[in-house]
Amino acid sequence: MAIEGADIVKAAACLGASLAMGLGALGPGIGEGMAAAKACEAIGKNPKEAGLLTRTMLVGQAVTESTGIYSLVIALLLLFVV
Amino acid sequence: MAIEGADIVKAAACLGASLAMGLGALGPGIGEGMAAAKACEAIGKNPKEAGLLTRTMLVGQAVTESTGIYSLVIALLLLFVV
Amino acid sequence: MAIEGADIVKAAACLGASLAMGLGALGPGIGEGMAAAKACEAIGKNPKEAGLLTRTMLVGQAVTESTGIYSLVIALLLLFVV
Amino acid sequence: MAIEGADIVKAAACLGASLAMGLGALGPGIGEGMAAAKACEAIGKNPKEAGLLTRTMLVGQAVTESTGIYSLVIALLLLFVV
Amino acid sequence: MAIEGADIVKAAACLGASLAMGLGALGPGIGEGMAAAKACEAIGKNPKEAGLLTRTMLVGQAVTESTGIYSLVIALLLLFVV
Amino acid sequence: MAIEGADIVKAAACLGASLAMGLGALGPGIGEGMAAAKACEAIGKNPKEAGLLTRTMLVGQAVTESTGIYSLVIALLLLFVV
Amino acid sequence: MAIEGADIVKAAACLGASLAMGLGALGPGIGEGMAAAKACEAIGKNPKEAGLLTRTMLVGQAVTESTGIYSLVIALLLLFVV
Amino acid sequence: MAIEGADIVKAAACLGASLAMGLGALGPGIGEGMAAAKACEAIGKNPKEAGLLTRTMLVGQAVTESTGIYSLVIALLLLFVV
Amino acid sequence: MAIEGADIVKAAACLGASLAMGLGALGPGIGEGMAAAKACEAIGKNPKEAGLLTRTMLVGQAVTESTGIYSLVIALLLLFVV
Amino acid sequence: MAIEGADIVKAAACLGASLAMGLGALGPGIGEGMAAAKACEAIGKNPKEAGLLTRTMLVGQAVTESTGIYSLVIALLLLFVV
Amino acid sequence: MAIEGADIVKAAACLGASLAMGLGALGPGIGEGMAAAKACEAIGKNPKEAGLLTRTMLVGQAVTESTGIYSLVIALLLLFVV
Amino acid sequence: MAIEGADIVKAAACLGASLAMGLGALGPGIGEGMAAAKACEAIGKNPKEAGLLTRTMLVGQAVTESTGIYSLVIALLLLFVV
Amino acid sequence: MAIEGADIVKAAACLGASLAMGLGALGPGIGEGMAAAKACEAIGKNPKEAGLLTRTMLVGQAVTESTGIYSLVIALLLLFVV
Amino acid sequence: MAIEGADIVKAAACLGASLAMGLGALGPGIGEGMAAAKACEAIGKNPKEAGLLTRTMLVGQAVTESTGIYSLVIALLLLFVV
Repeated sequence: MAIEGADIVKAAACLGASLAMGLGALGPGIGEGMAAAKACEAIGKNPKEAGLLTRTMLVGQAVTESTGIYSLVIALLLLFVV
Repeated sequence: MAIEGADIVKAAACLGASLAMGLGALGPGIGEGMAAAKACEAIGKNPKEAGLLTRTMLVGQAVTESTGIYSLVIALLLLFVV
Repeated sequence: MAIEGADIVKAAACLGASLAMGLGALGPGIGEGMAAAKACEAIGKNPKEAGLLTRTMLVGQAVTESTGIYSLVIALLLLFVV
Repeated sequence: MAIEGADIVKAAACLGASLAMGLGALGPGIGEGMAAAKACEAIGKNPKEAGLLTRTMLVGQAVTESTGIYSLVIALLLLFVV
Repeated sequence: MAIEGADIVKAAACLGASLAMGLGALGPGIGEGMAAAKACEAIGKNPKEAGLLTRTMLVGQAVTESTGIYSLVIALLLLFVV
Repeated sequence: MAIEGADIVKAAACLGASLAMGLGALGPGIGEGMAAAKACEAIGKNPKEAGLLTRTMLVGQAVTESTGIYSLVIALLLLFVV
Repeated sequence: MAIEGADIVKAAACLGASLAMGLGALGPGIGEGMAAAKACEAIGKNPKEAGLLTRTMLVGQAVTESTGIYSLVIALLLLFVV
Repeated sequence: MAIEGADIVKAAACLGASLAMGLGALGPGIGEGMAAAKACEAIGKNPKEAGLLTRTMLVGQAVTESTGIYSLVIALLLLFVV
Repeated sequence: MAIEGADIVKAAACLGASLAMGLGALGPGIGEGMAAAKACEAIGKNPKEAGLLTRTMLVGQAVTESTGIYSLVIALLLLFVV
Repeated sequence: MAIEGADIVKAAACLGASLAMGLGALGPGIGEGMAAAKACEAIGKNPKEAGLLTRTMLVGQAVTESTGIYSLVIALLLLFVV
Repeated sequence: MAIEGADIVKAAACLGASLAMGLGALGPGIGEGMAAAKACEAIGKNPKEAGLLTRTMLVGQAVTESTGIYSLVIALLLLFVV
Repeated sequence: MAIEGADIVKAAACLGASLAMGLGALGPGIGEGMAAAKACEAIGKNPKEAGLLTRTMLVGQAVTESTGIYSLVIALLLLFVV
Repeated sequence: MAIEGADIVKAAACLGASLAMGLGALGPGIGEGMAAAKACEAIGKNPKEAGLLTRTMLVGQAVTESTGIYSLVIALLLLFVV
Repeated sequence: MAIEGADIVKAAACLGASLAMGLGALGPGIGEGMAAAKACEAIGKNPKEAGLLTRTMLVGQAVTESTGIYSLVIALLLLFVV
């Protein structure tokens, strides 16, 4: 049983990285899907504004993506820095 | 079993950072996605107000983002300060 | 196994800070997103009142944000004061 | 292992404060968001009554906020009094 | 390990107070938010009855608040009496 | 470790009181909120019957409250009688 | 550690009473709230039948209440008979 | 530690009785509430058939109640027979 | 600690009986409530077919009840045969 | 502590039988309830096809029942064969 | 404590068989119920195509059933082959 | 206590196979049921295209089935190869 | 108790493979089912575009499938490479 | 019991990889399915814009996919780098 404290910290960091990324992908994944769904619906009704709608969708998704990227950053920090 | 108290604290901080960020990305991710979805729908119906609607969407998402950023701050504090 | 009581308290404070902030970001995140979504919908239908609607959205979101800020306060107290 | 009973109580108080505030922010956060969303919708339809509607929204949110404030009180009591 | 029975009881009371208040704020928080949302919607449609509607909303919320207050009472009893 | 059986029972009673009240406030809180929401909606449409509707809302909420009061009774019994 | 079997049984009965009542208040609380909500809606549309509707609501709620009362009975049996 | 096997069985029976009744009250409570809600709605639209509708509601609720009663039977058997 | 294997089996059977009945009452309880709700709605719209609709509701509920009865059978077998 | 391996297996089989039946009754219970609800609704609108609709409901429920019966089979196998 | 490895494996297989079947009956049970509900609705509107609709319902349910049958196969393998 | 490592691995594989198949049957079961429900609805409205719709439903279900089959493959690998 | 570290790793890999595949089949299973349901609905309304709609459904499902395939890859890596 | 720290870390990495991928596939799987569903609906109504809509769906799904890919990256890093 040659278990040392650093191993416990490392194991916690591994589990933590997966929880941060796994849970952090859940919200943006659902949210961005809703944005994409409504954008398709809107373009189907008003195809002349497709460029405008695609741009709005991408801007809205980019902001939504931000919390997913924060999760990625925390997960990478947990794996390589801590 | 050379485990010391500081290791337990560090392991708890690693798990805590991941939970704070993972759960903290869930709410804003879904909320911002709803805002982006409704903005696309509104622009599809009233494309002349696209600039106004994009601005409103971004302001609304920025406020929503705030709780996600609080989570990021707590996660970073847990990793580097505590 | 040089674990002392203060370490247990510190570890509990770390986990607690993350739970307070993670769960506390969930509710306001979803709630503020609903407010932003409906504000976009309303501005799309009645763009002349955009200023009034943005102001109402921000006031409503500010009150909603309050519970998120309480959570941030509790999390910071757990990290630095306790 | 110099753990004493007071440490166990302190650790339980730390975890308790976070659970009280984290869960206690969930309900009011969602509820106040619904109120803000409907207020925006109503003002968009009837902008002449904006003052009346904002006041009603704020009164309704203030009552909803009360359970969030109870949670804050319990959390602060757990941190500083118990 | 100078842990005595009174410490266990105290720790359970701390956790219990937080669970009682945290869970007890969830239901009334969502319920009162629904009441506030519908009151805003109703006033937007029929602003002449704003006083009547605000009064009804407050009465309905007051009854809903009661279970939240019971939770507060139980939490305070757990902290200071037990 | 001077823990006796009576302490275990007391600790279980503390946790039990909080669970009984916390969970018991969830259902009536949501249910009474729905009743209040619909009463506001109905009064907005038919303000002449406000007295009748408020009375019906209060009667309906009173019955709904009953399970919340049962929970309060069980919680108080757990704290002071058991 | 003077823990005896009767203490374990008593502690389980305390936790059991709280779970029975807490969970048992959840379903009827939501169900009766739905009944009260729909009764208000119906009276708002057809106020002449208010007496009939209030009676129906009360009968329906009384049956719904029954499972809540069963839970109360089980909880009281757990506290005082077992 | 004078714990015997019969105590373990008794404790499991206590917890079991509460889970059986608590969970068993959840489903019928929600289901019967839906039936009562729809019966009120139907009587509000068609008050001449109030007797018929009340009877149908009661028959439907009685069948729904049956699973709640099964749960009560199992809970009582766990408390007094096992 | 005079715990024997038969006690462990008996305790597991007690917990199992409660889980089987508690969870097994959840699904049919909600399902039969939906059937009763729709039957009331249909009779309110078409009261001349009340007999036919009540019969259909009862047949549909009887089939739904079957899984609840299977659960009861398993629970009774766990209590008295195993 | 005269616990043998066969007792562990028996206890696991008891818990397993209850989980298989309890969870296995949840899905079909809700699903068959939906079928019965829609059948009542359809017969209310088109009572001349009541026989056809009742037959379709029963066929559909019978197929849905099948997974419930598989669960019953697994539960009985766990109790009497394993 | 004559517990051997084969007993642990057997106990895990028993619990596993119940989880596989219990969870595996949940999805198809709800899904097939939705199919049966919509088939009844469709036949009520268009009774001339009852044969075609019943066939489609059965084909759709048969495919849905497949994952339930996979679960049954895994459960039986766990009980009798492993 | 003649438990060896291979037994632990085997027990984990048994539990794993059941979780993989149980959870893996949940998603496709609900998804395929939605497809079958909508196909019945569409055929009821447009019975002339029944062949086309049945084919589309089967193709869509086949793709949905794929993740269920992946789960079956993983479960069988866990039982017989690992 | 001849348990070695490699056995713990292997057991974790077995459980991990099942969780990855089980959870990973849940999201795509529901998502692809929604796509298939809407494709059937659309073909029923506009059967002339059946080829186009089937192609769109398959492309959309293929992208959705990708996260399910990632899960399969991770599960296979856990079983055979790690 | 020749378990060393590196084994604990490896086991945590295996479990972590599966949780990251399993949870990370849930959100995008549901979100992309919503996008595909709405794209099919829109193409059915406006088949002339099929190319535009397919492109929008793919762009929206690609952004949604990103959080799923982050999860895959974290899972692969956990398996092969950590």
